[in-house]
Amino acid sequence: MINIEVVLSPALLHLTNVKDCNVVVIDILRATSTICTAIHEGAVSVKAVKTPADALKLKELGYLTAAERDGLKLPGFDLGNSPFDCMNGMVTGKHIALTTTNGTKCIEAVAGSGPRNVLSGSFLNLEALAGWLVNDGHDIVLLCAGWKDSFNLEDTLFAGALAESVKRKAPCRIDCDGTLMAMDLYGCASGNISKFLEKSSHYKRLSHLHHEEDMKFCLQHSVFEDIVGLVDGDMKKI
Amino acid sequence: MINIEVVLSPALLHLTNVKDCNVVVIDILRATSTICTAIHEGAVSVKAVKTPADALKLKELGYLTAAERDGLKLPGFDLGNSPFDCMNGMVTGKHIALTTTNGTKCIEAVAGSGPRNVLSGSFLNLEALAGWLVNDGHDIVLLCAGWKDSFNLEDTLFAGALAESVKRKAPCRIDCDGTLMAMDLYGCASGNISKFLEKSSHYKRLSHLHHEEDMKFCLQHSVFEDIVGLVDGDMKKI
Repeated sequence: MINIEVVLSPALLHLTNVKDCNVVVIDILRATSTICTAIHEGAVSVKAVKTPADALKLKELGYLTAAERDGLKLPGFDLGNSPFDCMNGMVTGKHIALTTTNGTKCIEAVAGSGPRNVLSGSFLNLEALAGWLVNDGHDIVLLCAGWKDSFNLEDTLFAGALAESVKRKAPCRIDCDGTLMAMDLYGCASGNISKFLEKSSHYKRLSHLHHEEDMKFCLQHSVFEDIVGLVDGDMKKI
Repeated sequence: MINIEVVLSPALLHLTNVKDCNVVVIDILRATSTICTAIHEGAVSVKAVKTPADALKLKELGYLTAAERDGLKLPGFDLGNSPFDCMNGMVTGKHIALTTTNGTKCIEAVAGSGPRNVLSGSFLNLEALAGWLVNDGHDIVLLCAGWKDSFNLEDTLFAGALAESVKRKAPCRIDCDGTLMAMDLYGCASGNISKFLEKSSHYKRLSHLHHEEDMKFCLQHSVFEDIVGLVDGDMKKI
């Protein structure tokens, strides 16, 4: 039986034992969707770094630099946090150093706690990821990046969708109230996820910044087969 | 417009500004339901204290002492954390010092942050409380006590039910993803709250301890008219 726990905010991560678990980091709009896209588009690796300065240091080593804060690309960087920044051959064969408001911090935070794997979660590769998790068979922790430690709808919704998919494929133990809620929420929304998320705070924030196309892209269901996880400190195809 | 925010765990309270807000502390199973019951049954006041030792100190001043940890009444105390402990004249005219695993800590935690009022939330007085909040007209923070800082279903469900009721009675601003989720969750459950909660971790924990009657009692909808809030450090009828 695969145990599935959902952590609703990085500020609650200390309450969950992630040791030897497959931890899926979830920042649907947009960091983990962008990481999956970059790898799908042929980037060799994406390194999650804490600060823009950390990313710039890696530029000297040949990395492409990518930085976002509060939804905006920072000036002086090669890329922002949009999946479209990774298309048209922009990232093919490249190493990327990425820093974002929420998602990349989670990757760093969880990496030091002894997880079996740290994986990048997105609607884009949902079914492939669920199949991989079932095949691996270890307990699962779904870590929602949220917004500056606050709960958000879109990451929780994805956690529910992924838990639902894993549960369809294998016997699971789901005692965690966060997982039960996320699955119920997905049940409310699964008919039309985009419509459901229009009320969410981050949807409104990104709409205001004219990122509607990014959101539409990130909410596509299972269009990639790539599994992306941490290998020696970098997110890579695994 | 009354703003409604839901805080899903005491560990996330620092992210929300409660100053000048009406804060409703929610520990449905069972502390805030028991506090409402005690006041309804004629107790003069309930003081939320941190430790069993703090409660025992107040015994010398004539208080009834009430203590619960991990769902069980502690030995050597007059009462536990069951609403039934407050019936049959047991608490009429009395002052009570209460310490519990989750709920009483929240009352203490929020009291020092400059709220307008700290109120005790329960299904038992839901409609009366919603009416009082609308009448007062200030912004509302719904603080879920959870279980040892973890998210739980029953407190979130009540937050959704109360937000729904307030919204029905007055124009509200609901931008908080936590509030939106809680209202959706209540939408999933409102047909049969008891049935919905059977899957929750605390329902299973309390069933195992033979507290089914307590849960049935606490999930009754709007059977009290009393509003219970903090006055000079004690929970009283207001």
